[in-house]
Amino acid sequence: MDIKAYLKDKRELVDSYLRSYFSVPYKPTYLHDAMTYSLFAGGKRIRPILALASYEACGGEAEHILPQAAALELIHTYSLIHDDLPSMDNDDLRRGKPTNHRVFGEAIAILAGDALLTEAFTMITQMNLNTSTASQHGVKRFSKRSITPSPLLRVVHQVSDAAGAHGMVGGQAQDILSETTEPDRETLKFIHLHKTAALIKASVTIGPILAKSKTTVLKALMAYGENIGLAFQVIDDILDVEGTTEELGKTAGSDQKKKKLTYPGVCGMEKSRSIAEGLIATAIDSLKVFSSDADPLREIANYLLKRRT
Amino acid sequence: MDIKAYLKDKRELVDSYLRSYFSVPYKPTYLHDAMTYSLFAGGKRIRPILALASYEACGGEAEHILPQAAALELIHTYSLIHDDLPSMDNDDLRRGKPTNHRVFGEAIAILAGDALLTEAFTMITQMNLNTSTASQHGVKRFSKRSITPSPLLRVVHQVSDAAGAHGMVGGQAQDILSETTEPDRETLKFIHLHKTAALIKASVTIGPILAKSKTTVLKALMAYGENIGLAFQVIDDILDVEGTTEELGKTAGSDQKKKKLTYPGVCGMEKSRSIAEGLIATAIDSLKVFSSDADPLREIANYLLKRRT
Repeated sequence: MDIKAYLKDKRELVDSYLRSYFSVPYKPTYLHDAMTYSLFAGGKRIRPILALASYEACGGEAEHILPQAAALELIHTYSLIHDDLPSMDNDDLRRGKPTNHRVFGEAIAILAGDALLTEAFTMITQMNLNTSTASQHGVKRFSKRSITPSPLLRVVHQVSDAAGAHGMVGGQAQDILSETTEPDRETLKFIHLHKTAALIKASVTIGPILAKSKTTVLKALMAYGENIGLAFQVIDDILDVEGTTEELGKTAGSDQKKKKLTYPGVCGMEKSRSIAEGLIATAIDSLKVFSSDADPLREIANYLLKRRT
Repeated sequence: MDIKAYLKDKRELVDSYLRSYFSVPYKPTYLHDAMTYSLFAGGKRIRPILALASYEACGGEAEHILPQAAALELIHTYSLIHDDLPSMDNDDLRRGKPTNHRVFGEAIAILAGDALLTEAFTMITQMNLNTSTASQHGVKRFSKRSITPSPLLRVVHQVSDAAGAHGMVGGQAQDILSETTEPDRETLKFIHLHKTAALIKASVTIGPILAKSKTTVLKALMAYGENIGLAFQVIDDILDVEGTTEELGKTAGSDQKKKKLTYPGVCGMEKSRSIAEGLIATAIDSLKVFSSDADPLREIANYLLKRRT
């Protein structure tokens, strides 16, 4: 299959939904500007695409779960805005553009992050409540049978758990607290599993939850998600050493400068690369319960391994 | 009725639920400490109590909706932590104790706020998913008939909408953006309606939504909520001028120092007091569709008018 075409196709679907959703500015427009500045800064929409691909692998049609998939990008974007803040990573550049607080000031950047995180839960729960609004944004109408409130509640529960203190925020806090400490592989794995893998894992569980798939299917996708999530961050660590600022769109070599715990720092470059390859192989292996419906997920795993940005 | 005893009783119910929910520390414990430091700093639990009282007014039993009610306090606490940050209001004192960032540092304060906000949605959706966990925390078991997934989804939708860019965060952003601008009553009302009233209004709609009450009941409570919410903030503005730092537990006179838009600043003290009284009267009047079941709500409105802290 042509994975590049698949990614482009799905990315356009997510972008068009998000553009429609945020097309009407509201007061205060400066906050709306700050939110959309980072949301439309050129993200690859990996998390939403993983949700759509996981739903398709379970027999669903991507257009039916656009709000739930796109909401993941709001959460991811908020996390980048807050991570870049002066009191956190103090970064000036993200996706080749000045970071949110550099453009809108620190207070509005914090609030834009808060608003994106909060709106994610309005978005996840909007479909069932108002199908006419949803269809305005390009979401296909679905029969009451196809998506029901109970699985949607589970999605809210799962996503918020993965994004909060037990997941992403917990990982970011440990990351901040571990700066300048001695390299320690166990802590490093904790950070990566929580900071990055938790939300990616949650993304691929949206599909089986909303498609009401069997537990074996859910478990296979959870294993896939955790492994590609961890691999994603190992590769990020490698790229921070190997890539240029121009390629990455963010300041290269910043991990070392901030004395962050990273895989290359703890295990060396060669070992890090083989860890990433192993994780991707394990991820793909966990998809063996699926037919060719899961080919996009298999190809995404390979794509993540080869990515240069 | 003895409103002080009622408030104490309900506050203890909420506190005991929250204490049980956060009783097991998790890694990183420093983040958990930061979250619980502000959550258990002596808040009056007004929003959860309003949710419980609105549910009782609609014929429900308070213990059945503890997670949904208590989640409001997580959102309120996160908003205080972020509002106090150096880049926002830069406050050193809250509820008579050093503010979160003063104790845990700015990065962890931001993350503790993020985590509390996120956890609110895990909490709201937890009951339906795992009654045994809920009952461990003192939530009464309920029959499937009593609380169903659909209204719970609506609660997530409503609360997140009220807390985000269209509500509380939007109000806080406008507040920050309006510092040092000329007094303007329309902007002032916008700020107070969004920053404070939106979440209070959402709090009292939880009851009728979960009790599946008629639209007239829902509308009556929405009117009540908006009016007491607005009154709450007008009274806050008055207390900031009249109260002492010791009474308030936060720095008195800080609005004027920061050149905030306030009711006393725009309308004067006397007019502000009569506006607050008028709002409370309107709020109580909107409860006329209710019998004595709504007496706690009536008394809470009067209590808010008379409060000194």
